[in-house]
Amino acid sequence: MKVSTVWLALVCFSSAGSVIRAHADEGMWTFENFPAKTVAAKYGFTPSQAWLDHVRVSSLRIAGGCSASFISPHGLVMTNHHCVVDCVQSLSTAQQNFVDKGFSATTVADERKCPAFELDKLIEIRDVTSDVRTALAGKTGDAANLALRAETAKLEQSCGSDPSVRCDLVSLYHGGVYSLYRYKRYDDVRLVFAPEYAAADFGGDPDNFNFPRFDLDIGLLRAYENDQPVSSADYLHWSKDGSHEGELVFVSGNPGGTSRQLTVSQLEFERDMVFPALMPDLGEYRGMLEQFSAMGPDQAREANESLDGVANYFKARIGRQQALMDTNFFHTKVEAEKKFRDAVAARPDLAVAANPWDDLARVQQERSKLFVRYSSTAGSYFDAGLLGGAIALVRVPVERAKPNGERLPEYTDQSLVATQADLLAPVPIYKDLEELSLRLAFTAVQRNLGADDPFVRKMLGKESPDQLAHRLIQGTHLDDVKVRETLLHGGQKAIETSNDPLIRFAILVDPDLRAIRKEYEANVDAPTRADEEQIAKLRFAIYGTSIAPDATFTARLSYGTVKGFNDAQGRWVQPYTTVAGLFERATGAPPFVLPPRWLSAKTRLNLSTPVNFSTTNDIIGGNSGSPVINQDGNIVGLIFDGNIFSLGGDYGYDPESNRAVAVDSRILLEGLREVYSLDRIVNEIESSR
Amino acid sequence: MKVSTVWLALVCFSSAGSVIRAHADEGMWTFENFPAKTVAAKYGFTPSQAWLDHVRVSSLRIAGGCSASFISPHGLVMTNHHCVVDCVQSLSTAQQNFVDKGFSATTVADERKCPAFELDKLIEIRDVTSDVRTALAGKTGDAANLALRAETAKLEQSCGSDPSVRCDLVSLYHGGVYSLYRYKRYDDVRLVFAPEYAAADFGGDPDNFNFPRFDLDIGLLRAYENDQPVSSADYLHWSKDGSHEGELVFVSGNPGGTSRQLTVSQLEFERDMVFPALMPDLGEYRGMLEQFSAMGPDQAREANESLDGVANYFKARIGRQQALMDTNFFHTKVEAEKKFRDAVAARPDLAVAANPWDDLARVQQERSKLFVRYSSTAGSYFDAGLLGGAIALVRVPVERAKPNGERLPEYTDQSLVATQADLLAPVPIYKDLEELSLRLAFTAVQRNLGADDPFVRKMLGKESPDQLAHRLIQGTHLDDVKVRETLLHGGQKAIETSNDPLIRFAILVDPDLRAIRKEYEANVDAPTRADEEQIAKLRFAIYGTSIAPDATFTARLSYGTVKGFNDAQGRWVQPYTTVAGLFERATGAPPFVLPPRWLSAKTRLNLSTPVNFSTTNDIIGGNSGSPVINQDGNIVGLIFDGNIFSLGGDYGYDPESNRAVAVDSRILLEGLREVYSLDRIVNEIESSR
Repeated sequence: MKVSTVWLALVCFSSAGSVIRAHADEGMWTFENFPAKTVAAKYGFTPSQAWLDHVRVSSLRIAGGCSASFISPHGLVMTNHHCVVDCVQSLSTAQQNFVDKGFSATTVADERKCPAFELDKLIEIRDVTSDVRTALAGKTGDAANLALRAETAKLEQSCGSDPSVRCDLVSLYHGGVYSLYRYKRYDDVRLVFAPEYAAADFGGDPDNFNFPRFDLDIGLLRAYENDQPVSSADYLHWSKDGSHEGELVFVSGNPGGTSRQLTVSQLEFERDMVFPALMPDLGEYRGMLEQFSAMGPDQAREANESLDGVANYFKARIGRQQALMDTNFFHTKVEAEKKFRDAVAARPDLAVAANPWDDLARVQQERSKLFVRYSSTAGSYFDAGLLGGAIALVRVPVERAKPNGERLPEYTDQSLVATQADLLAPVPIYKDLEELSLRLAFTAVQRNLGADDPFVRKMLGKESPDQLAHRLIQGTHLDDVKVRETLLHGGQKAIETSNDPLIRFAILVDPDLRAIRKEYEANVDAPTRADEEQIAKLRFAIYGTSIAPDATFTARLSYGTVKGFNDAQGRWVQPYTTVAGLFERATGAPPFVLPPRWLSAKTRLNLSTPVNFSTTNDIIGGNSGSPVINQDGNIVGLIFDGNIFSLGGDYGYDPESNRAVAVDSRILLEGLREVYSLDRIVNEIESSR
Repeated sequence: MKVSTVWLALVCFSSAGSVIRAHADEGMWTFENFPAKTVAAKYGFTPSQAWLDHVRVSSLRIAGGCSASFISPHGLVMTNHHCVVDCVQSLSTAQQNFVDKGFSATTVADERKCPAFELDKLIEIRDVTSDVRTALAGKTGDAANLALRAETAKLEQSCGSDPSVRCDLVSLYHGGVYSLYRYKRYDDVRLVFAPEYAAADFGGDPDNFNFPRFDLDIGLLRAYENDQPVSSADYLHWSKDGSHEGELVFVSGNPGGTSRQLTVSQLEFERDMVFPALMPDLGEYRGMLEQFSAMGPDQAREANESLDGVANYFKARIGRQQALMDTNFFHTKVEAEKKFRDAVAARPDLAVAANPWDDLARVQQERSKLFVRYSSTAGSYFDAGLLGGAIALVRVPVERAKPNGERLPEYTDQSLVATQADLLAPVPIYKDLEELSLRLAFTAVQRNLGADDPFVRKMLGKESPDQLAHRLIQGTHLDDVKVRETLLHGGQKAIETSNDPLIRFAILVDPDLRAIRKEYEANVDAPTRADEEQIAKLRFAIYGTSIAPDATFTARLSYGTVKGFNDAQGRWVQPYTTVAGLFERATGAPPFVLPPRWLSAKTRLNLSTPVNFSTTNDIIGGNSGSPVINQDGNIVGLIFDGNIFSLGGDYGYDPESNRAVAVDSRILLEGLREVYSLDRIVNEIESSR
């Protein structure tokens, strides 16, 4: 399941449970450090370099926070429905609701461009650790941030200004290694197929992160260049027979982020500060969206995607918190850190002037002073929706006037490609939903900082949060893409002379937002980075690369087997579900409604065909849409979720219960053929076998 | 601030901060153990027995969760606006909105009866510890619960069956002492005065639990008997000059509940299980209500009280959690427990077979297995609103057919008085709001227990939570008080033959609700009670009665002084606010809008009259409406809130920062005279000086 852009940048299903055991199937490995020998010893299969290369170059990343893969030589791309639902919704109208009814491009001409969609294919990884270290040497606080910003811009810009190339500076092992990832960027990506939402998300929120599961969570896209489907020399073939219980399988994708290498003081901050600060507001947003949806079918359609994302994040966050609240689990973290620190202390050659663990504990004290103000004025509250667009419009000319290396990171030449594409995307904007979000945002800021806070007084003036949200949203014309385009291309003067209330508001608050961010980054981010880098070096010295780096939304490979697990009541859950089970589970009431096409196709379907299956692969949010691959390098499934025990996996992996959940390759083909009659696509996939 | 009946039975502003210091002004003392000597030593004033008696018998309790006092010989009662807003809303219509416009009974004939309102005057306290101990001796689990239930019914019934008498069995010191509290019950209580909501709750949620503060949070009632105002021989006189900084003051009221004597394992459960389980759902409910309110003025009026209660609980609960998350504060709890246990261990005469602390830790393990199911099917979800009424209607004939001592506690002869009054109260019921609540209730139960849970399957059948909520609420006629009356008086047969969908649903789920409750009470409540009683005996042995018992919504007296405090930025906050400050703070936008009557009265008001003030008195939710009393036993203020540092006071009291917040007696009289022209009431109060 994916997370709404309103609430965060990262996707968020997660893996792992309450006890860490080394050398289970744990690890989201980089391709360059894949533990082939461990896999060989455990499973008798050694992935060759050619095998690894083939899988890597056939895999893709979706910039919004998902994974994907080429599955034909003609640019056909497989990912999850929940990774393309943004696009499906954008292409929908009140008259033609593709979210509800599904979308099938009968001919190639029917394939429709997804607005502001970016697909990345990894081309090259270059180690730039020494460049970054040199740039940061001797600098702290804001100076370190500015130096890193400049070096990042320089390195990323070194790939040139071709918008079809994207370079990202990536920090692995929390600063142990810096790499420059070079991607081929596809921005003409078209929708080929999306099932009905009810089939893709069958079981909805109650079944989310649960197994047994019965979802057809697939979305098919096609990458284009020069208005033609791209030739994808590298692509994954479809397995003929699918998988079987106990089989060794791999998952290739871009896990978004894990926190397994955080120190105890950092984990305590997550547990004691972040959750209590964020969850009540998130629940409130969820409730507002639910009640908004209850107003009518149009509102339900408008809010569907946000609601889905919030519900998903909600469940994931509670699961993560439960892991941190589990005193046994937390104790393993405390013990592991103690062991690591003891090992460092026993090595005189590793003596360092400062103690990075103690310093991080100090940083958390500082962070606790700044956190509420920072989190109330960043991210979900001010960066999203129309207000986020207004702030971006205000910042573009200001930042563009600066040298590339001195800009805020979102406005470097490289980043401006995506920033501008977002601003100019012809996505539908629902003003009542925008007003709802801003009402909550302003209310929460007032609540969190207090009515007497100078920023709150400046922000609200003599208005209430409701009044301000209403005036800004009802008065703005930024929902018109032409207005945004005019402002974007009009430069500083267009902004200065704009009477749009949202632009005026963005101009008013921008200096405060920048100042709050700068203070937080200088006092929290900079020292955290320095301490973590120190710890990373020590970790290399003690453990080498035997521990996988935390996930960073970059290419990773995990291994595991198709396997069931014991549920909370101790009953064994089989690893495969079937079409028969799907029909049994359909009550006819949401979210257990099967679309008419499925009901009428029942007699044509093989009731014993597997629908979903569970594996021991170590994955996390961002892995959505990852192919599940067998030893032959062929597709046997499509990752879309984890089981309930995988929640909390942000902090550790429990091989006993943590399971990845995938759509079976067999129901995918059978469904495309028998339910959706999409023979041209079935043929394209099958002829690529 | 008070809490919505939808969410809990207890009122919830709270006192205390991060460090416990003995013999500060800590303690919500019983009148029989009031530390008069400590007060004399510290402040040079010894409250005499006559002084204490006069204050006690002039004080009142409002059964819903507030405090009050007689302030004239003619039954005039002072409490908070937020303690009578239920009544004000019940008397309002769309045409005549007393919540918005305020209510003033110009003559005694204009005083209007509050539906289902109960005012209790304490008559007698009898020690029944040995009766209860004898009844419970040798019993555990369900048997102990049944024995306590029978003994409670017997003791409470010993007061007779006159509905104007109420007897409550009260456990003090967590089972250290059992007392039978006998009250005179007034059920004809009429509204005399309520200011506009905007004046009573000026500053709304942003200012809630904050100081400086500017609220006129007063409500005036009158108790009647035989359709005549009661003669209240015992009443508090109004002080002539109000209070001054540093003055010794007392608060007499009924603090609802504190948790200062919980063990570390119980506090950990609160912190690690209760908060994460409840807050996201509470946030969701808040968001739904907010969005419901945004639909129009009628909806805003309907949802106002629930929203107010939820917002209040929200803030209070976060404050309490922050106290538990404060590692320094928690450490003081750990250390205090260790010291206590060491002291017990050093006394061979106190040797006990079982270790109650270790057993309570074991009980928490058991509790964690049952908690989600129990909390999902009790309290807020199934006990409130129309569904709560349906379940009560279904249970009344079943329980009434049993001997008094074998009934569920809510259905003993004594409790049935209130249960039936609630069922027959002609309060307005808003079906759309009821549907909203049930939608969330069913969704949360499905989410918390899983779609495959047998109870969830039974509850939902083939319907979704939304469909079920819609069908039940739209189909029910229980919103008609006559229908409820017919069912209540029709006995078992009327229930069995009813086709009302909500009654049918209540019949369906009642056995499960009973079974879940019984299991929880047997495995959690019973052993907890036994362990706590053991600890209470040990505490008496070590500390005597030098520590006040945890609050139990019974008569308590606290002492303190009028005093400011340092705010979060370390700036000293003066203890009094003034009328001038009120006018300065009024932006004109909600919740900082002054009603027209105040604006036009400005020239008649003394701008230096104190509006609110802060004191060091140790109070908590339930104290709302308590009089603040000077050494002469006269009223100088009216408690309505605590400051932000008082949140978390459930667990401990911090004399440095914890402050009670009260309305000043001077603005009360001046407001009644100059703003509301309620001379007959001003005269009644002044002639009682």
